[in-house]
Amino acid sequence: MNVPRSSFPRIVIVGGGFGGISLAKKLRNKNVQVVLLDKHNYHNFQPLMYQVATGGLEPDSIAYPIRKIVQEYKDFYFRMGEVREIDGDKNIIYADIGELKYDYLVIATGSKTNYFGNKEIESNSMAMKTIPQSLNIRSLILENFEQALLTNDIDERHSLMNFVLVGAGPTGVELAGALAEMKKAILPKDYPDLDVRKMEINLIQSGDRVLNTMSENASEKADKFLQDLGVSIWKNVRVTGYDGKIVTTDSDLIFDSATVIWTAGVQGALPHGLKADSFVTRINRIKVNQFNQVEGYDNIFAIGDIALMVSDKNPQGHPMMAQPAMQQGKLLGENLVRLLAKKPMKPFVYKDKGSMATIGRNKAVVDLPNYQFSGVFAWFVWMFVHLFSLIGFKNKAVVFLNWVYNYVRFDREARLIMRPYKKRKQISFTSDEL
Amino acid sequence: MNVPRSSFPRIVIVGGGFGGISLAKKLRNKNVQVVLLDKHNYHNFQPLMYQVATGGLEPDSIAYPIRKIVQEYKDFYFRMGEVREIDGDKNIIYADIGELKYDYLVIATGSKTNYFGNKEIESNSMAMKTIPQSLNIRSLILENFEQALLTNDIDERHSLMNFVLVGAGPTGVELAGALAEMKKAILPKDYPDLDVRKMEINLIQSGDRVLNTMSENASEKADKFLQDLGVSIWKNVRVTGYDGKIVTTDSDLIFDSATVIWTAGVQGALPHGLKADSFVTRINRIKVNQFNQVEGYDNIFAIGDIALMVSDKNPQGHPMMAQPAMQQGKLLGENLVRLLAKKPMKPFVYKDKGSMATIGRNKAVVDLPNYQFSGVFAWFVWMFVHLFSLIGFKNKAVVFLNWVYNYVRFDREARLIMRPYKKRKQISFTSDEL
Repeated sequence: MNVPRSSFPRIVIVGGGFGGISLAKKLRNKNVQVVLLDKHNYHNFQPLMYQVATGGLEPDSIAYPIRKIVQEYKDFYFRMGEVREIDGDKNIIYADIGELKYDYLVIATGSKTNYFGNKEIESNSMAMKTIPQSLNIRSLILENFEQALLTNDIDERHSLMNFVLVGAGPTGVELAGALAEMKKAILPKDYPDLDVRKMEINLIQSGDRVLNTMSENASEKADKFLQDLGVSIWKNVRVTGYDGKIVTTDSDLIFDSATVIWTAGVQGALPHGLKADSFVTRINRIKVNQFNQVEGYDNIFAIGDIALMVSDKNPQGHPMMAQPAMQQGKLLGENLVRLLAKKPMKPFVYKDKGSMATIGRNKAVVDLPNYQFSGVFAWFVWMFVHLFSLIGFKNKAVVFLNWVYNYVRFDREARLIMRPYKKRKQISFTSDEL
Repeated sequence: MNVPRSSFPRIVIVGGGFGGISLAKKLRNKNVQVVLLDKHNYHNFQPLMYQVATGGLEPDSIAYPIRKIVQEYKDFYFRMGEVREIDGDKNIIYADIGELKYDYLVIATGSKTNYFGNKEIESNSMAMKTIPQSLNIRSLILENFEQALLTNDIDERHSLMNFVLVGAGPTGVELAGALAEMKKAILPKDYPDLDVRKMEINLIQSGDRVLNTMSENASEKADKFLQDLGVSIWKNVRVTGYDGKIVTTDSDLIFDSATVIWTAGVQGALPHGLKADSFVTRINRIKVNQFNQVEGYDNIFAIGDIALMVSDKNPQGHPMMAQPAMQQGKLLGENLVRLLAKKPMKPFVYKDKGSMATIGRNKAVVDLPNYQFSGVFAWFVWMFVHLFSLIGFKNKAVVFLNWVYNYVRFDREARLIMRPYKKRKQISFTSDEL
């Protein structure tokens, strides 16, 4: 892929997410050649995708050109391409844009949606792991309402206005809250000739509480916030199928819905070619030691969502979130410099800075290591943290402006079907409608 | 399409562009039922599309939800759908979402790209009449550069970096200028391992001057501005073909280019079903009288780009631009109210407020009815006028913020390939590149 050899050892980073970018920054001008590959030419800020999906933010304001981040780095090459296979013996990666030799390889490919093998759900439901997927959800929600206006079939209209979210982790909870606020403040004004009160938001969770990675206090509060907003929460229910019309579950519950958003599982976005015992099949995460070194290889590392670093204290590995990825990227950058200087590497210790989720206007839950709180103040903390985590002054400013506007005006103006998700159907009609 | 009959006469407006929206506003709460149809759920601000195409603006900031504009109008129905055919005898329109009877029909469908029957050019070149098309151009420009990095074939690289714009009206000129500024300020920093000086921008014009609808003074200045920015301008040259690789012309000139953007012609976006003598075939504009009434019909009107209103003084009709559309929409709104009150309608008189085009940073040309100027002041006037023409406070604010940022930082951050335009090719490579 046309990268000239320099006198420095070549480190190839696959993936420009939170982990890959943190690592790249640490390797800036450090007597190494760095090649960063990503299938997109931008880094995206996944925690705010649900706002793109619900018309609150422009997609461009949560994406940032990778080339701009690394513009001034010496001996640094970005290539837009997708890695297909790794040959750990020959030290070569194979991508759709060609092949490349590496001295050190860092896999930071993140995660993708896990349907646990259910192909029917995979092909009929929506996911929200990328910006294009978020825009598809945005289009579909609005298309459903446009279509609901046109039909006289009560069942069809109900199905179009019935939203089923599977999985009550942060993504599911935040989406459910944002949909509930659309129902309250936006849709009744936009669709005066439709009874928007009939819109349903069903949040289905296989466990016994929402936000089960957070504190019980946060779960309880989030649960209450969601119910206050009119979200129906179904706990201890496992979705077993969805044919595009009917959601079946392991209980008697059945949902008639045109829109299922699946946030119930993630798995590592695993490249081909690693030795079979280097990863755990069910979740496709790569087993790494405390230096993020991949089991069975000396010069291959994995960081972030894709990396599974277990210890006696932490048998499940670190949560698949931005914080561990960024911390691992940062430390690995330092460790690679140490390694090249023949100094010993430092083991990774995860520093949990806490977690948070927003449910709606003035409603959020925050777990700090020693303190939990919720409500208006939590909501402001959530906004502040997310705003300052965005890359780039302009994105911060545009997001801030949108938030102030949306808050003051109880509005969201990005309810635009820029790219239709489904083709409009020919609607049946009777002559008395003319 | 499920619109209930009210006691008021029903006016159906097809198209939510500048004309349709101006008309809708005038008909607000005026004892008429209004049904507005558009194939998109948003109104878009076409004059700034070239900035979306060149990474200077978010698409969302130049689009505005139509439902939000008409939210509080009584007896007003918006339907997202595309009109396929009009039956002027039965007073029915047929759309992809069903059929509808009208008492009065206003065709405000605007214009689309005119390839003058050349199917080869149509299928291989890019157009820029819609937001999705603008995003396609944005993706293609960036994809070309990513691909140019990967190839060792000098001819292929040249073709990828050679941009041909056909037509030097406002769209062609503004795009050429924006591309030239990308070449100067953005691309050399983003692609340090590519010789961006080799990028070419060729602007081809069949007439003998650029911006030929403006004053000669404006043409001369724009020509000079473009040449200062490094754009090659080819006058009196007509493009005859483009097979995706080679642009042929009516002279000996040939261009080897992976990207041709066609802005050389527009035609009315004509619905089917009108009597054959109601429109001019070559340009598909509908012949209207001075009240915008379609020839041969009493209760069908046409406004904006699609309408051809000729007089002895003005044998070509009004220019296909926002101003005539808005003025006609406004007057027709008043005239329809007069018509229903059995009062005489007022004839349309176009008030030319002037025209303007921007070429780049500090470079614009402005023609006012009695005064022409160019340069920095013209550029500020251009920005001020466009900013205040945008619908909605939030869009104004976001565009302003982007402009200030882009100006101060010599930057454009929306260089994002959100939706790839072409599939990446497998690039050939040799082992010494490894």
